Parts: sequence; structure tokens; C-alpha cells
Amino acid sequence: MRHNGTEVTVYTTEPPWAAPSGTRITGVRAVVTAPAGTNLVVVRVDTDDPGLYGLGCATFTQRALAVATAVEEYLAPQLIGRDPADITDIAGTLHVSGYWRFGPVLNNALSGVDMALWDIKGKQAGLPVWQLLGGRCRTAVPLYSHAAGRDAAEVADEVREHLAAGYRYVRCQVGVPGAGTYGAPSADATAPRSTPLAANAWDPAAYRRTVTGLFDSLRQDLGDEVELIHDVHERVHPTDAVGLAQDLEPYRLFYLEDPVAPEDLDWLRRLRARTSTPIAIGELFTHPAEYRPLVAERLCDFVRVHVSAIGGITPAWRLATTCDLFGVRTAWHGPGDVSPVGHAANLALDLASPNFGIQEQHLFDPRVREVFPGCPEIRDGHLWPSDAPGLGVDLDERRAAEYPPVAPGAWTPPRRTDGALQRP
Amino acid sequence: MRHNGTEVTVYTTEPPWAAPSGTRITGVRAVVTAPAGTNLVVVRVDTDDPGLYGLGCATFTQRALAVATAVEEYLAPQLIGRDPADITDIAGTLHVSGYWRFGPVLNNALSGVDMALWDIKGKQAGLPVWQLLGGRCRTAVPLYSHAAGRDAAEVADEVREHLAAGYRYVRCQVGVPGAGTYGAPSADATAPRSTPLAANAWDPAAYRRTVTGLFDSLRQDLGDEVELIHDVHERVHPTDAVGLAQDLEPYRLFYLEDPVAPEDLDWLRRLRARTSTPIAIGELFTHPAEYRPLVAERLCDFVRVHVSAIGGITPAWRLATTCDLFGVRTAWHGPGDVSPVGHAANLALDLASPNFGIQEQHLFDPRVREVFPGCPEIRDGHLWPSDAPGLGVDLDERRAAEYPPVAPGAWTPPRRTDGALQRP
Amino acid sequence: MRHNGTEVTVYTTEPPWAAPSGTRITGVRAVVTAPAGTNLVVVRVDTDDPGLYGLGCATFTQRALAVATAVEEYLAPQLIGRDPADITDIAGTLHVSGYWRFGPVLNNALSGVDMALWDIKGKQAGLPVWQLLGGRCRTAVPLYSHAAGRDAAEVADEVREHLAAGYRYVRCQVGVPGAGTYGAPSADATAPRSTPLAANAWDPAAYRRTVTGLFDSLRQDLGDEVELIHDVHERVHPTDAVGLAQDLEPYRLFYLEDPVAPEDLDWLRRLRARTSTPIAIGELFTHPAEYRPLVAERLCDFVRVHVSAIGGITPAWRLATTCDLFGVRTAWHGPGDVSPVGHAANLALDLASPNFGIQEQHLFDPRVREVFPGCPEIRDGHLWPSDAPGLGVDLDERRAAEYPPVAPGAWTPPRRTDGALQRP
Amino acid sequence: MRHNGTEVTVYTTEPPWAAPSGTRITGVRAVVTAPAGTNLVVVRVDTDDPGLYGLGCATFTQRALAVATAVEEYLAPQLIGRDPADITDIAGTLHVSGYWRFGPVLNNALSGVDMALWDIKGKQAGLPVWQLLGGRCRTAVPLYSHAAGRDAAEVADEVREHLAAGYRYVRCQVGVPGAGTYGAPSADATAPRSTPLAANAWDPAAYRRTVTGLFDSLRQDLGDEVELIHDVHERVHPTDAVGLAQDLEPYRLFYLEDPVAPEDLDWLRRLRARTSTPIAIGELFTHPAEYRPLVAERLCDFVRVHVSAIGGITPAWRLATTCDLFGVRTAWHGPGDVSPVGHAANLALDLASPNFGIQEQHLFDPRVREVFPGCPEIRDGHLWPSDAPGLGVDLDERRAAEYPPVAPGAWTPPRRTDGALQRP
Repeated sequence: MRHNGTEVTVYTTEPPWAAPSGTRITGVRAVVTAPAGTNLVVVRVDTDDPGLYGLGCATFTQRALAVATAVEEYLAPQLIGRDPADITDIAGTLHVSGYWRFGPVLNNALSGVDMALWDIKGKQAGLPVWQLLGGRCRTAVPLYSHAAGRDAAEVADEVREHLAAGYRYVRCQVGVPGAGTYGAPSADATAPRSTPLAANAWDPAAYRRTVTGLFDSLRQDLGDEVELIHDVHERVHPTDAVGLAQDLEPYRLFYLEDPVAPEDLDWLRRLRARTSTPIAIGELFTHPAEYRPLVAERLCDFVRVHVSAIGGITPAWRLATTCDLFGVRTAWHGPGDVSPVGHAANLALDLASPNFGIQEQHLFDPRVREVFPGCPEIRDGHLWPSDAPGLGVDLDERRAAEYPPVAPGAWTPPRRTDGALQRP
Repeated sequence: MRHNGTEVTVYTTEPPWAAPSGTRITGVRAVVTAPAGTNLVVVRVDTDDPGLYGLGCATFTQRALAVATAVEEYLAPQLIGRDPADITDIAGTLHVSGYWRFGPVLNNALSGVDMALWDIKGKQAGLPVWQLLGGRCRTAVPLYSHAAGRDAAEVADEVREHLAAGYRYVRCQVGVPGAGTYGAPSADATAPRSTPLAANAWDPAAYRRTVTGLFDSLRQDLGDEVELIHDVHERVHPTDAVGLAQDLEPYRLFYLEDPVAPEDLDWLRRLRARTSTPIAIGELFTHPAEYRPLVAERLCDFVRVHVSAIGGITPAWRLATTCDLFGVRTAWHGPGDVSPVGHAANLALDLASPNFGIQEQHLFDPRVREVFPGCPEIRDGHLWPSDAPGLGVDLDERRAAEYPPVAPGAWTPPRRTDGALQRP
Repeated sequence: MRHNGTEVTVYTTEPPWAAPSGTRITGVRAVVTAPAGTNLVVVRVDTDDPGLYGLGCATFTQRALAVATAVEEYLAPQLIGRDPADITDIAGTLHVSGYWRFGPVLNNALSGVDMALWDIKGKQAGLPVWQLLGGRCRTAVPLYSHAAGRDAAEVADEVREHLAAGYRYVRCQVGVPGAGTYGAPSADATAPRSTPLAANAWDPAAYRRTVTGLFDSLRQDLGDEVELIHDVHERVHPTDAVGLAQDLEPYRLFYLEDPVAPEDLDWLRRLRARTSTPIAIGELFTHPAEYRPLVAERLCDFVRVHVSAIGGITPAWRLATTCDLFGVRTAWHGPGDVSPVGHAANLALDLASPNFGIQEQHLFDPRVREVFPGCPEIRDGHLWPSDAPGLGVDLDERRAAEYPPVAPGAWTPPRRTDGALQRP
Repeated sequence: MRHNGTEVTVYTTEPPWAAPSGTRITGVRAVVTAPAGTNLVVVRVDTDDPGLYGLGCATFTQRALAVATAVEEYLAPQLIGRDPADITDIAGTLHVSGYWRFGPVLNNALSGVDMALWDIKGKQAGLPVWQLLGGRCRTAVPLYSHAAGRDAAEVADEVREHLAAGYRYVRCQVGVPGAGTYGAPSADATAPRSTPLAANAWDPAAYRRTVTGLFDSLRQDLGDEVELIHDVHERVHPTDAVGLAQDLEPYRLFYLEDPVAPEDLDWLRRLRARTSTPIAIGELFTHPAEYRPLVAERLCDFVRVHVSAIGGITPAWRLATTCDLFGVRTAWHGPGDVSPVGHAANLALDLASPNFGIQEQHLFDPRVREVFPGCPEIRDGHLWPSDAPGLGVDLDERRAAEYPPVAPGAWTPPRRTDGALQRP
């Protein structure tokens, strides 16, 4: 559905300081492409300076077209004619321009614009974005990789492969007997389940026992040198999250991820009172009412927001610096539903943050690398920066067009033994 | 932008209890129409039961097409084939189906579906929705009307007209000298402003003084019988909101609306410690992290959410019942950017809630009434229920098509005297 | 006193990422100059890139030579050979390099280096520093001016002059009968004081009455358009600060400054519970344990730190962004004991911060303008930015040398009627 | 750099009570000497009473010349002419005399004066300083000694030697494989580290495991009679400090020292909620906002401030008495960068405090003993008092001059495996 007619109504009012001679934004568009089967959304901001443009990640893969609509129908008309240098003012103006604000659709749309403006500013300055943020604090960015298996032995084998490849931080997920789990294949059912409703059902209690057993086994098998991570993916009740974090305390996780859903963040106060297992949370956050108390009250150890989901580099950098004041570290979300442009933004934040904690690894598909020249490079378990100005990643739109958006796949929600919905 | 191809991929998995014989959803579409110049978004859910369909309001007028995209591209495929009776399960499933959740785009999309399912259930039962919510608690629903003027005298005149028309609750907005304000025309500048930058600038201090003067004058002029309301629309700094609420205490407002922005809700703790001026807030809320502490800590007296912006009747009814537990009242948002279907949902909630507080009045344009047969009726300052099954409002799609979506108008953000952005 | 011998021992270890080809710091020195009779400390950082150097303000005027010693004896050897682009890493490394940290001497020394590095980065990028911080949010920066008099009438006369000159925000200080006060001449003693000890004594109770009378008189005399500020300068006991803030509530101050000393910040919790008079505080802060709870608990409305006293642009920008998350505004300290380089840093922060509140005005002496070409310009009650790269202010060292450091003047501490010391 | 001219401008105003006949301060100077290779700063205050002078420790060894500048350029002129008996009034006056206050440079400068005034008062009274503080509470002062080794066996051997020498309290530090640690030699790397970046890097997780293993081994090896201490020296992230304190709980430490940095003190609330491992902290403290909440909320068991770093005997004695009120004990910082004068001040406080906990031992180098006649004596694991008036330690300035200040050595900050800075 489009607005009536094909012409975009441009309705930007110039801010009072705008000088007639400045660089101006001449075009804003959203590109949705799926080179590896996952929709990626990238915003391109063009200017009247020949050859000067910026790219930003706006990937909310599950609702890609809604984000693209927000960018092209609503943000673009407010941007054309503005000076791309006014990043903070533009971010603030766009944020309230729909009156209702926040949420993953609007924030990702803002992020596409915000990152593109930082990319432009870096190109204008001839500096990588991390130089604009105060310069680097580290040589390269340590990554955590993903290991999974049907049982602890399979997981341990995979962890050993990652260690051999130079990784030191590994997230470990294991199958639960009789049902799948997040990020791991289903284990074989060793015994028939007690109720006929339970065939493929999600059982939080079985999961809790299985995961505790996994880490007991991994520490015996792999020793202490490796840093272990586990992602609960919110699939237990909050009080069980407290118990699980306690159960896992002897195995000294680097962190336990997403023990509770965004709806249940207040439960972290209880969890923190009961255990010192480090906590990472935040990939689903889209509102400061979610992350502000977590930082101010030190209810987590790592903020893990999806940078585009909170609005881009501007709010993420502000959040990172606030975290530093409170002794909280960063662990930005970085799987395959972050575009290479978004990974470059993560990398810029990682390099520039004294309180960086860890970065999630993603191995880019060769088709993604072709569509996005300049994709960040992984070597020896680290992500390595380049000195290219801006974010350093380009978009080959001709190739991108070869991978048009795909319809979202069939999502089957987990259900418990009584058939009730389990949050993700 | 559309997904590749024109066929919708349907990917709903039936819940375990689904019986083959039940009613099934066969189609879901979003209609955007602007009979009075404001985009309204309505979702229609069709079923395989001949003639049985439901309508829901999904109006996020400023981002109407993004909501429509979310409904048609992402929610529709999950709904086709499901039994419309499973409202709560569907609401929960759709809510987490994009993993990222909340925010005005996704919540409005959910609301369109949710209200349509309640409409269907009412039609199946042969009962108005308020009967399904436990039945009525009141004869009719008292409304507050809107008065505004360039100065206190003009406002007082308008209030007197509303009193004569049967209203007892009136929201009063007044112009600020030399600059406009929210909901009122600009007052004449009685003296040149002190700085050359300030021509049409927003001045929070002048606003605070003017509003305090307005209510002092209104109480002297109109006496105590009328219930007065004022909407700050967030246009002061939080600490000044506290001061303004104190300043207005002698004039016994029915409530002061939106003293702070959603970004600054924690400041309400300070406000509550300083003044007993009643507070209404919430039209911008889209996340429980915003409204949950307000209710549990009784930081406001009235929740004023835009029902479709939190996801429809299901979450609004749950919020209303929670409010009742804590002694907080409702004052659902109800201006012209709520469709008549949404107004009918407000009315159902108002009738059924023991802790109803007040309802915002909106006088429907005749063109709106033609597009939406069954529009709720106003008489004697009250909104009156009908006994029609479901929500009782229909949509004439042929007429709706005569009013296609309009491009959003030129939004000029308020700026302060130094050119800096002022939140709305 | 100097280290034995004249050669500086350079002991920097390059960080692991240092490339042999980068720009390197070749020299760091502190210049103390007093063109207007006040010692100013400026740090100059030179590089091996011909013509590329940076300047930073390190002015702790009361202990200027101790700061200069810290810079030249201790920081310089750690800086020579480092890449000036690594601002954050350098700031962190220097901060802990003496093990003991914080405090005005070390923080000002750090600030001299930090601002110089931002100046260099801006010059390398060809952009003013405010562009590196996300771009401008306002046209120009509104200033507050200083009015003072022996009584309310004198103060009112002076405020009128400032209004005529384009100012809208004015700080008002008045003499206390029989004794001086901070920032104002002594009022005539209208009656003999009650005790022979009291000749020139400071009397907090008389001060509290006099100030309340001043603002009552000013509001009657000047009306409401002007924004009034008052600086307590900590000269009352904390409980009297609470009372004074209450007394002044009817006069709607823009803010009350420094009601308590840094030793008594916890008393702000009590003050905030009792009054909505806005509070600005922070010019004496040198430690995050001072400002962190103020922001997180919203115990003040404006942070007013002396940017060089907390370590420069890096920590100030981090503090500003944290404040924004919590709804707190900035009002950086900006009198004559901030060098023009420091004023340029304030200006950069003011322009780039959405949550800027107000800036203190300082009218530079012509001799200061000669020593510091590019001094920020004041017009119509605002400070105006230039587009010069970096901070935009230079230092004419030949002229600076004409104004060598002056010995600190005779400071006579205020004493109460019993002879006891009163904090400043 | 010096003020223009060689004459000091004296600007002290006599307090109202000053009698013409009193003793007067005639000179104040700072002596920096490094008899054992570590800069020590001592302040000498001379009077017009023949032969009456005092000595105070002002040793901030890493910034010795900045302290000396503060004393000679800024404090001396305010002291000349004052009666040395007015210790409290002088301390208060000097503290605020630069307006900005606190921090290690200014506090050490104040301490040099403060201790010297106590030394003078003791000499005037013919009493040791501990007699002026209410008299002794113990015969002699128990000390803790320092043991370290490359592995647990080496540490155990050294502990046994200390036990044989009469010590009962021993701080134990151990090397971490492949990298050094604070206070201990590097352990041999038993296996190649997992990443090529990690050669000599600091690894908090390996440290945590190694330390836990050390104390497990020590308790098995040495039994329970010895009191064990460990110093984290802040080298873990705050959440890991909580975990480490829990891990060590079974080994009943006398205390765990400095689990968090001064920037992260609020994390002690979490640590206290999780474990009963006793906590000592404070050698880096320079501001009451650091130590006040620790005592009032009992967030530590031992305050361990470096007495000169908080301003000398006056604030330390006040802190000790406050601690007693709250059940907190003292463990003053006492290594080689405290001069013998400072050790004598520690000893005076230790003897006079009912809530004394433990004292850090330092074995003075013979050259230090020659420069400082009267150095406190250690015997049987205790520090023994003398009856000499004042602090009992003298300074041989002729010998001191043989050991002029040394330039600070090459400080190489610890860096983690990714090259990022680790706080000390």
C-alpha cells in the first residue's frame, strides 16, 4: 500500500541554523535484500555532494517491510534538504515526529538513518567511525562463537573445534530430551513422555536439569580455560530463571543470557539478590524504561541490545557511556539478522568502548560478502577493524536486487505440555 | 515494497486443541481511509462462517501504512485457518511472533486483530462486547470536552457553552503570548520578546505562568462546579512539571494530563511527593515497563492509554482490572485519530469498568459517520451504548475507498528560543 | 622543584595496536598565563605532523602550578610517542597511571591533554569538535549573565541593563547588611550588630532573609519574563539550604545554585522531598561518586561541572549523555577561571547536547582575546559557534609570556559571628 | 615553573582569637627524598619557638613534585604567622582555600601540614601523639606480612617463614600462569595460551581460578591457625569480584582486599548481599563520598585508607572514631610509599583506636632508617611504640639530600588479551 500518487511530499522545516551552503540530503531509501535467505534492511542516504552517501542497518528481519515502509513513507520526506551533519538533532526530531515512539519498527527505521549519517560524517572527516567516538581501546574485538549439540558430548566436541580455531568464548546450547530447545537440535527422547499432549512440548523443568548437567559435564571435560556462555532465550518462568542462575553458579559462566523476558525485567532484582552468576540481557530492548533501571541499579553485567533496535549508533553510544559510569559492560547482539553494516557499527562501538565485554560472532555467507563489500573480517577468534572512512562497508545494489525479500518462514511457537504458549 | 510474488505464504500451526469443525479465519486485511482528512486504520477479519467478520481499530495515524504493512504481510499469514474464538492465545502468539515486540506499529497491528476478534465473538454470542466483559456498570459514559482560546476570557466563554450543552468536564488550553501552545491558538504578543532568536519559539516558562493564570481566572469566573482538566502535552522540563502541578493545586483540577514525556516517567515519583494535583498520563504508552510501575506505585490517578497503541481490548481490559486493584481510574485516549471502531472499544471498556474515570469526547465528522455506520452517539455530555452485538460499528468499504490515505502533513517541531528541539 | 637532570624520561609503552606509520605525539607542555590577572593553564600537545597541535584547558587557577607540574613531570613522558587519535585509551591510561586518581589537580591535568587531543582530532577531520559529537542541536548558546548590588533596587537596575543587552537569564546576588556575600558588595549595616564579634561576620540567617526579600522585590519590580538564578555558594548549613529553597519557591527561579557543599550532597535527597525549586550543582565536583547518584536519582536538575575539573571533554560528554537518559540538563561552569580554550569546549558540548540547559557567560578581557585568538564570540545574550576545525581557539605563546603567572591573591575565609570558619 | 619572583606572598588573615603572644609558624617546606628508590614527601613546619618544628608525611609517590608544589606555592603562604596549635581550624581553612578540594595531590599536601602540627603539639605537650588521642588501647600493634610465590607451594613456604618469625596475619599473592599478577611473580605458563594476542596479557578468569586454588591449597597445607589475606588490587570486573568473594568463603579469609575500584564502590552492596567474606578497602580513597556510605551502610569490614591521602591524622582519626560507632575496623595502608613519619602516624592511630583491626607491615631499608632517625620498630610480628614526644620520627635533611627525587619509573599498564586497559 502506498500513499496516493507517486511523488513524495517533502515537509522538512529547516532548523534555524541551516546555512544555504551546506551539504544536503537528497534521497533516502530502504533496501531489503536476502542474500543468505534472511531479510536484511539497509538504509541509504544520498547527498548533493557527488559520491557522498551513507549506509545504515535497519534490520528487523521479522518485520522487514514494515521498517522499509516507515523509512520511505515517513522518514525520507523529513530528511530531504537537511544537512546530514546534524545527527543528534535529526535523531531527536525523527524520534518524536510520529508522536508515538519506540518499538522495533520505528527504532530500526531511525537506526538506518542514524548509522548512515555517522557513515557520512566519517567519510567527510576521512576517519573510521570509531575514531569519531574517541579512538580505539583495543587491538581487535574478541568474539564468542556458538556451539550446540544433541548432548553434552556433542557440544564439547564442537567447543574443542572452536578453541582450535582461536576462540576462547563459546556459547553452548544443548537439546532437551523429547523436544527441541533454542539454538540446539532436539535430543533423542530417552523415554516416552508422561502425557499424550506432550509429544513435542517444551518442558521448562527438563530444560533446567539438562542445562545444568551440560555445564557440569563441560567443565569436567574441557577444564576452566574456556569461557562459557548460555542463552536461556527467556524460555523459563522468572522464578525458575533465578533457580537456574543459582544452579549454574559452580560452573562460572562468562554470562547467562536472557534469563527473563522484557515483560519480566523486574524479576532481575530477585535474581541478583540470589546469585552472582553474571547476567547479559537486552537483545529485545526497544525502550529506555527497559534498560535504564538495569544500568542504574546494576541489575545486569552486560547490555546486549540489538543496536538498530534501540535506534542506532547515537543511542547505543550514549547507553555504552552510561554503562561505563556504572561498571556495566557491552555485548551487542550480532547474529545473522544484523546486516554487515550493523556489524560494522557494533565493531566501531566495541573498539571505542573501554567497557566493552564481548561481541557475538557471525560468519558471513559468501553471498552476503558479495552484496556488502568491506564486510568486517574475522581472524583468530577476533573481529578486526579496517581504517576505511565511515563504517567501511558498501552495498552493491545490483547484486542485492538478485536476492529480493523473502516471505517470513513458518514460525511454530513453542508450547508447553498442556498446549499453552511458551514465550520464545 | 512487497514480498516477491503475490501469494501470501500461510504458516500458522494449529494449536493442539483445534477441532476440525470450528469456525476459521479466512482473510485479514487493513483498510486505511481518511474521510475527515486524518488517516484511520481498520482491520477486517473474515471467517468461513457466512457473513461473520470483525473490525478492529489499528489507527496509528502518523505511521498508518507501516501498520497496514505489519498486518497484511506478517499477521495475516499467521491468522488464516485459526479459530477466531482463541483471542488470548492468538494475542500472545502474535505478540512474540516477530521476536521483537511492543512499540506503536506492532501494537496497533495487534489491536486491529484483537478488536476484530472481540467483535466476532460478540456477534457469535449475539451480545455487545461490554456484556462479555461482565456487563455494564453505568447508564452512559460521561465525557470531557475541549475548550481553547487566545486568553482566559475566550476559554471561559467556550466552557460556558459546553456547560450549557450538558458537559461537566472540560479540558482548557490557552495561547501563550507570542507563540502557540498545544491545543490552543497563539495569543497575541503583548510585548516584543526579549531576544531576536525568539520570534515563534516555544517558551516553557511563559507557558507555565500563562496556564497558572488561566486557571486562577477560570475559577474566579466559573466557580467550582465545573471539573477542569489541562493537558501539558509534555512541553516542559520534568522539574518544571513538578512546579506547575504545585502551582495549579489551588484550582483543584480534575486532572493534569501528560506532565512528563514517556522518557521521563520516573520524575512522577518526585511530582507525587510534592503535590496532590491529580495526574492522568499514558496516551503515548506502548510498553508495560511504562505503565506497570505507574499503577503499582500509584504514580498517576488516571491511565489514559490509546487502546490500540497497547494492543487492543485484551491488554486494555487487563490493565483496567489491574488499575481497579490499585485504586487507579481509566481515561482512555479518544480524539479524532481513534476510528469509530476504536471509540466503540473505549465505550465497551468504559461501561464495564467499575473504576472508569472519564472519557475524552470526539465529535465525528459526517463523512466519518457515513463510512462507519453505527458510530457511537453523544447526548447530554455522555456517550450512549447501543445493544448491537460485537462492537456495533460497521465499515462501508466502498465509501472508505473514496477517502484514500493522505500523505502526512508538514510537521514542524516546536523549537525553543535557541533553536533546540522541544519534545511535543 | 624538578626531577634531577633536565631530560625527561619517556616511559610510554605503545599499545599493541600501534602502527609504525601513525601520527605521534612529540611534545606536551603546560603554559600558565595571566593576561587578565587570573592564572590560566593551557596544555599544548605537539605532533610529528607538521603544524598539527592541540590545545586544552587545565585551569585550576588556585593551584595552577601544581597542575602544570603534574602535566609536565608526569603526563608528558607517558604521552610522547603515542598516537593522539587514541583519546579514550589515553584518558583511561593516564587516569590510573598515578594509582591514586581524581581530585582537581590530576583531573585538570588530564583535561588539558584530553581537550588537546579532541582539538587535534577535529583538525585532522577538518571539523569543529561539536561536529564530532553528533552535530549541533541549536543555533547559538543562551547565556546567563551576572547582576549584583548592595540592595534589591541596585540589582534590579542591573538586570534591566542585561535584558536590554539581549540576555534573558540573569544570576542575582545581593549584599547582606553588615557583611559581604558571595558575588555581591556588602550592604550598608542598617543597625549595629548584636555582638562585638560580629563586625564583618557571615550570618547565614541574615543571608537567608535578605535573599528571599531580594527575589520578592525583583519579581514585583521586573515581572515574570526574566529567568532568575541565585548562587548560594554553599554558605548555609544544609538544613537551611532546604528552607531557603522552600522560601524561594514562589519566585520561580530558573535554578538555585550550589545549595550544599560537595561534603553534604546526601542532603539533596531531603531538599528534593521538600521543594520543587530547580537545583543546579556541580562546579566543585571532581569524582563520579559525587555526580553519579545525583543523576541516577535525579537529585538535581542541572549538572554544572567545571569541565576541566572532571577531566575534560571525554568525561563531560559521557556525563552529558548519561544526564540526557535521566532527564537532567547541563549548565557547565564558565567564569573567568576557565580559559578561552575551556569556553570553546563548553560551547562544543552545549551545541551538541540535546539536554543543554544554560551556559554561564564570561566577557573576555581584551588582553585575553589577544593571547587566545579565536576566542568564542558573544552577541545578543548568546555564545556563537564558528566552523573552525577542532576547538577553534589558538594560543599566542609570545603574548602569553608577557603575562606570567601571578601569585594567588590574599584569600580571607568567611567566618561566622563566633569566629568559626564558614565554608566558601 | 615558579611564580614570578622568588619572594613568597604571605596572605594569611589571623583568626579573631589570635593572641599576639602565641607561637607562630615561620616556615613550611616540602622535602622529597628517595633513599630506597621510592620518592617520599615530608613537610617540615618551623616555628618561632627555638627548636620547635614538626614533620608530616605527604607521600603521593607517583606525583611527588605536584604535592611539593602545592605545599610550597599554595599552603605555605597561608600558614606563615599562624599559631600551630589551631590544627582543626587550619585544616578546615586550607581544605577550602583552593575552592576545589579533595584528590590525592591536595590531600597529601594537607596531610604534610596536619601531621606536622600534631607533631608540634605533641612536642609542646611532651607527649606522644597517641597520648593526645586518648591514650593507648593495646601493648603493641599486630602486623600482617606479605608472602608471594609462583605457585601455592612457594607461597606456603614463605608463609611458614613468617609464622616462624612471629607473624600471624599474612597476605598471600600468587602468580597466574602465563602472566604476572599484582604482588607476585608470574607463574610459568604450563600450556600455550589459546589466542596469539594473549602472550603477556592479564586474564581475570585465570586469576580468579588460580587464587581460589591457592587458598584451597593453603588451608590444606597450613591449617586454620594462620590468618590469611588476599589483595585483588581491583583487577577483576565488579561482578567477578562478587563471585571471587563467594568462591573464597570456605577458606575463611581475615579479609579480601580491594575487590573493586573506587569507580565501582556501589557494587559492594551486591557483594555484601552474596557473601560473608570480610572486605577491606580504601587505600585509594580521597573523598568522603567514597568512604562515608561504606561505613554508614557497613559495606566493608576494614577501612584501609592511606592516611596522608585523605588529609592526615585529623580526618583519619575522625574516620576511625566514626568507624567505631558503626562496628567497622581500621587497617591503614602502610607499604614503602608511606614515609616513616607516616608509619608513625599509623602507629599512633593504631594504638589509640579501640576498633583497630590490623596494620600492614613494612620493613624499612637501612638507608631510610638513616634519613629518618626514630623509625618505628618491628618485633615479633608487631610494631612497638616509643614514648618520644610528637610522632617520634626525625628527618636528617643533609642525608635526605643525598637521595634526590627520582623520575617515576616506566609504568606499563596491565592490558587484557584484546589489548584493552585493565585497571590496576
